[in-house]
Amino acid sequence: MSRAIGLLGGMGPAATVDMMARIIAATPAGGDSDHLRLFVDCNPQVPDRNAAIAGRGASPAAALAAMARGLERQGADMLAIACNSAHAWADDIRAATTVPLVSMIDATVATILRDHPAKRRIGLLAADACLDADLYQRPLRDAGLEIVLTADQSGFMTLIYGVKAGDVGTDARVAMRAIASDLVADGAELIVAACTEVPLLLAAADSPVPFVDATDALVQALVAEATR
Amino acid sequence: MSRAIGLLGGMGPAATVDMMARIIAATPAGGDSDHLRLFVDCNPQVPDRNAAIAGRGASPAAALAAMARGLERQGADMLAIACNSAHAWADDIRAATTVPLVSMIDATVATILRDHPAKRRIGLLAADACLDADLYQRPLRDAGLEIVLTADQSGFMTLIYGVKAGDVGTDARVAMRAIASDLVADGAELIVAACTEVPLLLAAADSPVPFVDATDALVQALVAEATR
Repeated sequence: MSRAIGLLGGMGPAATVDMMARIIAATPAGGDSDHLRLFVDCNPQVPDRNAAIAGRGASPAAALAAMARGLERQGADMLAIACNSAHAWADDIRAATTVPLVSMIDATVATILRDHPAKRRIGLLAADACLDADLYQRPLRDAGLEIVLTADQSGFMTLIYGVKAGDVGTDARVAMRAIASDLVADGAELIVAACTEVPLLLAAADSPVPFVDATDALVQALVAEATR
Repeated sequence: MSRAIGLLGGMGPAATVDMMARIIAATPAGGDSDHLRLFVDCNPQVPDRNAAIAGRGASPAAALAAMARGLERQGADMLAIACNSAHAWADDIRAATTVPLVSMIDATVATILRDHPAKRRIGLLAADACLDADLYQRPLRDAGLEIVLTADQSGFMTLIYGVKAGDVGTDARVAMRAIASDLVADGAELIVAACTEVPLLLAAADSPVPFVDATDALVQALVAEATR
């Protein structure tokens, strides 16, 4: 019997649906009953993570803790957050619940170190809150890696907020590809999609260097944990 | 403030994700916070509806009632089922909860009668359990309409179970288009995708006659109810 996953979602909703689709695709299944039980709280009203870290808005801590408690009450055997930035409040979630939180940050950093040990300069595509909370930079620096950030963070954020408003069109995809290309021109040997909206605009095939997708890394970790 | 939707899902999981994506696309939104709160219990272990109606398997009634209670406890203001066949147990769900169940059957029949009043012969693509429980035939007959069923119901069911196992490839799409074409050759003036797996293989553009998609009909009803 597999174990149930509780997903804190809605940040944004399209990224949550993308993650669910990938969990389903990553689960070996010959029919419905082989798939994993997923409890999903797709809550788009969680206070904005970027505004909160910047001191311009309410903290999402209480909302995230309440969602986590609700998912545990539903029967989730483990929790995950379909938003990298919201991991800045991972300790609030852990304090509110008794089941393990499978961290997207941990899964992604482990994937980088395991699958791309020769890459030294890591291009990091992450939202403001994720960068400001040092979620990826600290473990990557601790592993002796150098981080390359985009020179156009505000253009990047405009694309991320565009996805949340439903814009995944050609212009947005072209713009995200340009940001990725510039990262490579600035020395990145690997690109990390460290925001769950990024893969809605940029696929591995669009990247001129190896591409590590945080959504995929978390999905692999969740499916392994739920089926072991 | 919009109201929260509780979705009984996992029957199958891909169809649930499809419905969520369409709820998000159908919601007017300029950012995360304009989207609807969705509580989803994606439970692929609900006993098989087709086996149950045929007397070859356990009833899903208790599982569906428990899911509905859990979603109401989470905060759902209304419930919906992302599976047409499971509506055979709609009364068990209603008896277990105090919030309204927005019926996919009712929404779809209303869409047919409202948008296609001149069509008399309705081609019905539905799973065995849905047909055996007379979920669509009764209201359509009551409205004076004639029902056209596929001559290859077992081939149709093979395609549906294929989707649940992850097969949405070209061969499956071609086969579902052939079943739709045969329905039209047999006199159908309109095709109803009355199984949530059908739109994963057949789009409106593939249908030689007007196409009413039960998933879409439910999504429109839910978004209207949640935002009114």
